[in-house]
Amino acid sequence: MNWISVAGLVAAFCTTVSFVPQAFQTIRTKDTSSISLAMYWLFTFGTLTWFLYGLYTKNLPVVLANAVTFLLSATILYFKIRNGSKDKKAVS
Amino acid sequence: MNWISVAGLVAAFCTTVSFVPQAFQTIRTKDTSSISLAMYWLFTFGTLTWFLYGLYTKNLPVVLANAVTFLLSATILYFKIRNGSKDKKAVS
Repeated sequence: MNWISVAGLVAAFCTTVSFVPQAFQTIRTKDTSSISLAMYWLFTFGTLTWFLYGLYTKNLPVVLANAVTFLLSATILYFKIRNGSKDKKAVS
Repeated sequence: MNWISVAGLVAAFCTTVSFVPQAFQTIRTKDTSSISLAMYWLFTFGTLTWFLYGLYTKNLPVVLANAVTFLLSATILYFKIRNGSKDKKAVS
């Protein structure tokens, strides 16, 4: 495996697992006041689309990376929606 | 262009522009209390690595998408670092 493939794996790993600490912090603190609802709607939809894209193009890394990121992103989105109005007062 | 390529473009567009509303909210409110520092270190490093990967593999969509996401993610990371200790009190 040449170093460019290694760079691709490192990049995919970092952008995928980066949502783990955010999901843990959100679950632990239940605080989503400074998190953007629009971001997580778009990002969750985007990772779901990447997941389906990976399935149809039979690209296992794309499927696995986006399955993980989708679950993490959807978790954060869930808490953001659940906090709904409470967050609006904090942001406005 | 078949619908699978369209799905790939939609997925790339959503996961890239999703950071725009977060960057705007962070710049407007200066509040990063519920944002994970570890997430943005990892994600910013990951998009930078994807950007370099795209340059070396001469993959323009990967270069462009990750250049945009890197700038947005780095902006959010800047505010998170700047808020440093203030956020620690809010989270702990």
